Amino acid sequence: MQPSTLSGSGLSDLCAQRASRMAASEIRELLKILERPGLISFAGGIPDPALFDVEAFRTAYAGALARPEAAAAALQYSTSEGYLPLRRWIAAHMARSGVDCTPDNILITSGSQQAIELIGKLFIDEGDTLLTAAPTYLGALQAFAPNGPRYDTLGDNVTAAVHRARAEAAGSRVKLIYLVPDFANPSGDTLSLAERARIVDMAAELGCLIVEDGAYTALRYGGEELPPIAALDARRAGSVDAGRTLYCGTFSKTLSPALRVGWICGPRETMQRLTLAKQAADLHSATINQVAMHAVAEACYDDRVAAARHQYRIRRDAMLAALDRHAPPGMDWTRPDGGLFVWVTLPPGVDGRRLLKRAIEEANIAFVPGRAFFAEEPQDNTLRLSFSLADPARIETGMERLCDLIRSEVAALRAVPDAVPA
Amino acid sequence: MQPSTLSGSGLSDLCAQRASRMAASEIRELLKILERPGLISFAGGIPDPALFDVEAFRTAYAGALARPEAAAAALQYSTSEGYLPLRRWIAAHMARSGVDCTPDNILITSGSQQAIELIGKLFIDEGDTLLTAAPTYLGALQAFAPNGPRYDTLGDNVTAAVHRARAEAAGSRVKLIYLVPDFANPSGDTLSLAERARIVDMAAELGCLIVEDGAYTALRYGGEELPPIAALDARRAGSVDAGRTLYCGTFSKTLSPALRVGWICGPRETMQRLTLAKQAADLHSATINQVAMHAVAEACYDDRVAAARHQYRIRRDAMLAALDRHAPPGMDWTRPDGGLFVWVTLPPGVDGRRLLKRAIEEANIAFVPGRAFFAEEPQDNTLRLSFSLADPARIETGMERLCDLIRSEVAALRAVPDAVPA
Repeated sequence: MQPSTLSGSGLSDLCAQRASRMAASEIRELLKILERPGLISFAGGIPDPALFDVEAFRTAYAGALARPEAAAAALQYSTSEGYLPLRRWIAAHMARSGVDCTPDNILITSGSQQAIELIGKLFIDEGDTLLTAAPTYLGALQAFAPNGPRYDTLGDNVTAAVHRARAEAAGSRVKLIYLVPDFANPSGDTLSLAERARIVDMAAELGCLIVEDGAYTALRYGGEELPPIAALDARRAGSVDAGRTLYCGTFSKTLSPALRVGWICGPRETMQRLTLAKQAADLHSATINQVAMHAVAEACYDDRVAAARHQYRIRRDAMLAALDRHAPPGMDWTRPDGGLFVWVTLPPGVDGRRLLKRAIEEANIAFVPGRAFFAEEPQDNTLRLSFSLADPARIETGMERLCDLIRSEVAALRAVPDAVPA
Repeated sequence: MQPSTLSGSGLSDLCAQRASRMAASEIRELLKILERPGLISFAGGIPDPALFDVEAFRTAYAGALARPEAAAAALQYSTSEGYLPLRRWIAAHMARSGVDCTPDNILITSGSQQAIELIGKLFIDEGDTLLTAAPTYLGALQAFAPNGPRYDTLGDNVTAAVHRARAEAAGSRVKLIYLVPDFANPSGDTLSLAERARIVDMAAELGCLIVEDGAYTALRYGGEELPPIAALDARRAGSVDAGRTLYCGTFSKTLSPALRVGWICGPRETMQRLTLAKQAADLHSATINQVAMHAVAEACYDDRVAAARHQYRIRRDAMLAALDRHAPPGMDWTRPDGGLFVWVTLPPGVDGRRLLKRAIEEANIAFVPGRAFFAEEPQDNTLRLSFSLADPARIETGMERLCDLIRSEVAALRAVPDAVPA
C-alpha cells in the first residue's frame, strides 16, 4: 500500500508511530470520481442498488418504530454483543452451512470490515506474521496495518514448516491466516475442499488462528457449494468452541451494505474478548439497524440471494464473454464461480495505474489497479474488474474500450526502445 | 479498571499484548441486570426513551426510503467522511457555539465512543502521558487502554511545567489532555471559563493535543452557557485548522443513542488522517442513519433539547433535594449544572462495590461504584448516580433507600473493631 501524502505540520508530529502505517484506500478514493456523467465503473465492489429490497426495509424500519415500547428499545443503547434475535438468526444461518453454533458464538459488528479490525486489534502484535493470499482484500490489509504485522504468502507448495521457518528467520511467529475462500476479493479465486482442509491442518500445525472472510459466499453462480473452513475446523476440533477459526460474515453483499451489519462467529471465549474490543470501539452497532436487518433477513434473505445470483451471474457471463472477444494477446484473467470480481493480469510492462488514468480520461471507464491488493511486492501489471454495477451492454462497451486501451499501451511499449541502464 | 476474568486456554495464548489491557466496563455489564422487575436504576447514563421523538424518526426513515433514487443511496455504501448534509448541519451547529468551521472539519463517527477510540489510535504511543480528570469517563479509559498510555491527573494547582516534569521523569511526554468540560461524566463538574482558558494555555505550552468530549453540553439546566474549549483554542490559534483541539460530539444524549451518530470537529489535516482510521475501522457509519439523523436534527433538534432540559432539570432537582433530605453525615455529592450525573463521596470506609451488592439485593436499586472511573488510584468510597431514567417519586424512594443503606454500612463499620495489623 502506498502511504498517503498528507502534508502540513500542525498536529502531525504528535501522531503515534502506527499512524505512518495508515494508508488511504485507492478504492475509497476512487468512489469519489464515480459520479462523472456517463462513466462506466468496474471499480468498487459495490452491490447493484437495484437489488436492494427497498420495500422490505421500509416495512422493517416502520415496524421497528411502530409500537411505542419496541420503538423506545430500537432507539436506545443496546448490548455490545448485539440484538439477540439477529444473533439467533445468524447462528441458524451458520448452522445451515455446517457451522453448528449458538448465539453465544456470534458477535454483531459494524460490517465485516469492523470484524476484521477487531480481530487484528485483539491478536496482532507488532512483527507477527500473517499468512494471506497475494493479492488479497485491501480493507483487511488496512485494518491490520496499524498493528504492524509482516506477511508471508500462502502458496500451493508452501508447507506449514516452511512458513514457520520463514517467520522464525525473521524473529517472528505465524499468528494468523487470513483468507477469502469463496470468489475472493480481488482474485475471484475459490479454494477447493482439499485446499480448505489443508488450511485447517496448517493452522493446527502452526498453532495459529484462521480468519475466514465469507463476504461473498452467498453469491455463487456456478460450481459446487463448499463448506466454510469454520465447519471443517469445528469438525476436526470437535466444536466451534474448541476450534481456531473466526468467521467474518456480512449482509453487505446480499441485503444492504449501508446498515453496517456484519458478524464474527467463533469460539465463545474469544467472542467474549472480542466483545470487550467492540465495546471500547463503539459500544455497540446501531440498534435500529440490527432490528431492521433481522426483519428483512427473516422476510426475504433467500429471495434476495436468489435475485442477486441471477443478476450477477448474467453480468459475470457478459464480462467473461466480452473479454474472450476483445482481449489482446498476453492478457489473462480469472473465471470466478461467484462474487463480484474478475482479476486481470496485463501484458508485461503495462501498468495498471497508468492504464486507469487513460481509461478515465479517454474511455470514461474505471477499475482498480491491482497494485494496492498486495501486502508486499506489488504487481503493477494487474487490475480488478467488478461486474456488479453495469448491465451487459455497458459491460460489452467497457471491455471493448478497456481492451483497445491495453492494445494501444502494448503498441506504445513496443515503439519505445528499451531504456539503457545508466 | 479491573481486568476481566476470562478463563480457559484455547486462543487466549495467541492474544496480542494489548489484549491484557482490554477490560470489561462495569457499566455495560450492569446494563444486563437492569431488567429486573421493579429495579430503580441510577446506573447507566442512558437517556429517557420517553424523550425520543419516535414520530420524527418514523418520518425520517420513511422519507429516506420514499423515492427510489434516495432509497438506493440510503441503502448503499457511502464515503468515510460521512453524509455531507449532516456534516453541514454539524458545522453550522458548531459555529453556533463559537467554533467557526466547515464540513471539511467534520468527520462522522459511530457515536462519540468511536471518536475517542479513533483519536487514541491515531495519537497514542505506548507510554505516552494523558492528562485527565480523576474520576473521568470510563469509556475513554477503555478506548485509550489498548494503546498503553500512562496518566497524570489535572488539578487546580498543577502547572504545565509540573506535568511535563512528571512525564519526563517517567521517560514519557504529555501527548493529550482529555476532558469533559460540561457536567462531566461521572463527576457532574463543569469547567469555568478561566479553567478552559487555562487548559488551552497549558496545551500550547506542552505542545499537546486537547480532546474535548462534549457529550452532555446541550443538557444545561442552570448557570451560564460557556464556549467550548475548541472555540477558545481556535480564537487563540487564529482558526480551527491552526488549533490543537479535537471536539467530540454526539446525538446520543439529545436525539437517540441507537443510531450511533457522533462526530469529531478539528483541524482539516488531522481530520484527513482520522478519516483513514475510520475507513480501516468500519468503512463508514451507517448511511441510512446519517440521512435519518440529519432529517430529525433539521426537524426538531432545538425542541428535543428543550424537552430534555426541562425533564432532566426536574429530575436533577428531585435527586439533589432527596439527598439533602436523607443523606447521613459524612456523605458528600456534587451539584451539577446539567448532564445526567451526580457524583457521591461516601463516608470513609464505605465501599461502593459492596454497597451496590446490597443495594441490588436488599433495596432493588442500582448505581455505578465509582472505582471504575479512575485510571489510577481508585477511590472505593465513591459512586455515580444518574437521574435520567427515574421520575421524581422513584428518585425520592431510591435516594431514601440508598441513604438508609449507607447509614447501615457506617453503623456496621463502627461496630467492627479496627483490624489489628499483624
